Amino acid sequence: GAGAGELALIAAFQRMLPPAPERLVRGSGDNAAVLRAPPFAVTSVDTMVDGVHFRLGQASPRDVGHRAMAGALSDLAAMGADAGEAYVSLGAPGGFGGAAALELAEGMFALAAETGTAIAGGDVTTAPALTISVTVVGWSDDADALVYRDGARIGDVVGCTGALGASAAGLAVLDGRAAPGPELSQATADALVAAYLRPVPRFAEGRSLAAAGATAMIDLSDGVATDLAHVAKASGVRIEVDLDTLLLADGVAAVAVQLGVPAWELGAAGGEDYELCACGPAGMPALRPFGRVVDGEPALVLRDGSGIRSVAGYQHRL
Amino acid sequence: GAGAGELALIAAFQRMLPPAPERLVRGSGDNAAVLRAPPFAVTSVDTMVDGVHFRLGQASPRDVGHRAMAGALSDLAAMGADAGEAYVSLGAPGGFGGAAALELAEGMFALAAETGTAIAGGDVTTAPALTISVTVVGWSDDADALVYRDGARIGDVVGCTGALGASAAGLAVLDGRAAPGPELSQATADALVAAYLRPVPRFAEGRSLAAAGATAMIDLSDGVATDLAHVAKASGVRIEVDLDTLLLADGVAAVAVQLGVPAWELGAAGGEDYELCACGPAGMPALRPFGRVVDGEPALVLRDGSGIRSVAGYQHRL
Repeated sequence: GAGAGELALIAAFQRMLPPAPERLVRGSGDNAAVLRAPPFAVTSVDTMVDGVHFRLGQASPRDVGHRAMAGALSDLAAMGADAGEAYVSLGAPGGFGGAAALELAEGMFALAAETGTAIAGGDVTTAPALTISVTVVGWSDDADALVYRDGARIGDVVGCTGALGASAAGLAVLDGRAAPGPELSQATADALVAAYLRPVPRFAEGRSLAAAGATAMIDLSDGVATDLAHVAKASGVRIEVDLDTLLLADGVAAVAVQLGVPAWELGAAGGEDYELCACGPAGMPALRPFGRVVDGEPALVLRDGSGIRSVAGYQHRL
Repeated sequence: GAGAGELALIAAFQRMLPPAPERLVRGSGDNAAVLRAPPFAVTSVDTMVDGVHFRLGQASPRDVGHRAMAGALSDLAAMGADAGEAYVSLGAPGGFGGAAALELAEGMFALAAETGTAIAGGDVTTAPALTISVTVVGWSDDADALVYRDGARIGDVVGCTGALGASAAGLAVLDGRAAPGPELSQATADALVAAYLRPVPRFAEGRSLAAAGATAMIDLSDGVATDLAHVAKASGVRIEVDLDTLLLADGVAAVAVQLGVPAWELGAAGGEDYELCACGPAGMPALRPFGRVVDGEPALVLRDGSGIRSVAGYQHRL
């Protein structure tokens, strides 16, 4: 077709939204949204681009919508904050089509509804590649109850909220670099692909870790090797990770064999698992420990039985 | 060169920022920004894409940064709100380069500083075309003191805060569709180009109109013909504009002659002037009246001496 006009699309998006929460004095459709603000606002922005963060064809518009919302919300979960509102900027090529745009919005709005996030505004434009920028705002009554990256202390246990490597392994399956076979059942391969396509922001775990005294948190968007290095640097501490104790998701080891890489590499350097990594006292619920904050030069050190391993994290280059 | 890495760029951006205002408990560099919130938050997002909203080569990276920030802030000005924070997502092609990225940030941060806007967070990614998405947040102690699009009432005067058409005429000069000559001095042409490249968000005018009882406001991003139609629809009123009384910027008439279009068309349908359009009682300061809210079917009606004119506004098509 001739494509969907911006104003008709925005109107269709607005009709898809559930009733606005009471705190939203004015939602999508005016110059700006207005809302009654609790004492502290917690805000983050995350952008995903076709060909960079996902590939249409591998990921449906619905998956892309889910994934863009999940990536943004995950940053709030990593503060121990609850989600409040999201503002979405959607850029899409001329040929993208209204049906695909609505499907993308459905994926995004479904996750928003599940997490109590109100879509309070946005922007639609043409762009050479599908680009979704999501700004999320959470709210807190007490800034001291939030968890930052810079609070890790010597003696803290370090761990994360779930099994790792599923997203990187799922992408390998989608790319055809790995495939189901004797060591990897179709069901397990499907679960890996689902982990890549539909990550889950860990709000309950984030709240629970914050309540249990976590000293520092970060969500695993780039992988343990990159993200925990941010915590080590911000906190000015040395974090040692025992790679042999990383819990890998089912099927990650089998995919690693097919890729010819050590399994720990998918777990430590594979991004987009969106589990939370936390430092804090021993015994925190929902945390699987794999390291410690120790005395020494600030750095992240990854070790296995054979010694120190180094892994290069991914960086965008402009 | 090999391009600038995301982390080094983010660190360079952070060093360019002025000291954070006291309300910012935690700025750029953690999972999310945290700030002490006044009672009401006013939030808007605006995205600009190379080849769609501007062309690199015509606009310098510094202009692009200024323009993206101005476009977003203008929505807050149109509520009668003050600026608080901005969150910037920057997507740029692999070859864009660190120097250009820093220049873009300088343009953006300078306007932020001028308007009292703190850059509180952001995101850097590769993208096929330069894409800047800016989420801006303003704050208010009283949601009833803000001005929306839906409050226009029969009898209101309608007008805007400045001369129109300069941005569209400036773009025509940049494109080479118009040029300085006997009827258009170089200085006037330069001023038109500057109006296109460096629009100014009208915060003082927005505050003053809100205080003077403006019933509805909108900023002119798409032009009177499109933007006032939003106000007419949201307010459920009929707005009549007398095109002969539109104040055009110096040189707009001369450019219109070169383009072979009526001058009022540049004034009413030319976008990106970022003046504010307001409805309200007669005698509001800072407002140049050109129309009225009248009894009748909700619609925007543009008239001149020869009758009713219709103008198609620009819409993105996906």
